[in-house]
Amino acid sequence: MIRQMRVKTNARTELIDITQAVQRLVAESGVRSGLCYLHVPHTTSGVTINENTDPNVGMDILKELNKVIPFDDKYGHSEGNSAAHIKSSLVGVSKTIMVEEGRLALGTWQAIFFCEFDGPRERRVMVKVMKD
Amino acid sequence: MIRQMRVKTNARTELIDITQAVQRLVAESGVRSGLCYLHVPHTTSGVTINENTDPNVGMDILKELNKVIPFDDKYGHSEGNSAAHIKSSLVGVSKTIMVEEGRLALGTWQAIFFCEFDGPRERRVMVKVMKD
Amino acid sequence: MIRQMRVKTNARTELIDITQAVQRLVAESGVRSGLCYLHVPHTTSGVTINENTDPNVGMDILKELNKVIPFDDKYGHSEGNSAAHIKSSLVGVSKTIMVEEGRLALGTWQAIFFCEFDGPRERRVMVKVMKD
Repeated sequence: MIRQMRVKTNARTELIDITQAVQRLVAESGVRSGLCYLHVPHTTSGVTINENTDPNVGMDILKELNKVIPFDDKYGHSEGNSAAHIKSSLVGVSKTIMVEEGRLALGTWQAIFFCEFDGPRERRVMVKVMKD
Repeated sequence: MIRQMRVKTNARTELIDITQAVQRLVAESGVRSGLCYLHVPHTTSGVTINENTDPNVGMDILKELNKVIPFDDKYGHSEGNSAAHIKSSLVGVSKTIMVEEGRLALGTWQAIFFCEFDGPRERRVMVKVMKD
Repeated sequence: MIRQMRVKTNARTELIDITQAVQRLVAESGVRSGLCYLHVPHTTSGVTINENTDPNVGMDILKELNKVIPFDDKYGHSEGNSAAHIKSSLVGVSKTIMVEEGRLALGTWQAIFFCEFDGPRERRVMVKVMKD
């Protein structure tokens, strides 16, 4: 069964911590030991795992990605959001996370971030939790 | 069981839409609900998920990757294809996609692309479809 | 069951081939056909699959990543290791690898590398091997 999560983004590029929302779906699934699969069904956003303690980390990630892949660079795509498509392919649209004792088995400093590269928009994340 | 898919590439760098070919393997597997694992067994190519409606999106992705990671940059690797190895590590060589009602659970605009970074060559994609 | 692997890194940025160590855990698991999930529980390192025959490939990957994402670039994060966080999100902290006949189903030239981006440190890799 695939569960759907809604994410509302507020800026052109933004990292949104979705760890607790994903953890809730893991808890609801009743799975104690298994795997949690995440998939972002969009082509101008993504999902990453990184530090959420200092908000500057997420801001540095976005600032540097936006510098390395500029918003405008003589792209051919007429919608004007090619940079977002490129960042999506670099960061990726899916993640697989181990589940142990009913919880996401992340490192101490790790959090799951929805990555908006062409917002603000209403977005979705697909979540599938499987037991061993 | 691991299925093998052949991909013939025609240029030094190229994105090839393999969605329908992967979907056929999913259909042949008979799996209605599960997961589809893709693995590219090469070190100078990769696999990504992105938009396939406007071909300019794929061209912009390649053009920008080729700009950020130049073909020549005083690399040490004697085969002269270090840029392809680097792009392979950035884009990644594997993907996990959910399967629902016998179909790849992709977003409306999402397609699966084989990413050639050192072609033209004869390439392979390994596919494993597992039911829940 | 999640197995833990220890990795000791020796430099600020470094690729360490962990293929044999992962293969040993696959063998110990007794799984003949299945999947091997890797997860790096850190936010300034990652895991990638690439060539291990010519050590220059790994050195070129690191040199180019360190050039595209400079160590210093007016980052806001006070710990001074933002570049490592960014590289971690680009390369990724997890991999899923098929297992066949008790072995990792990698391509001829493929190896699994732990990617240190903020070393030297004592690191861990979480490994979960599941049978079909």
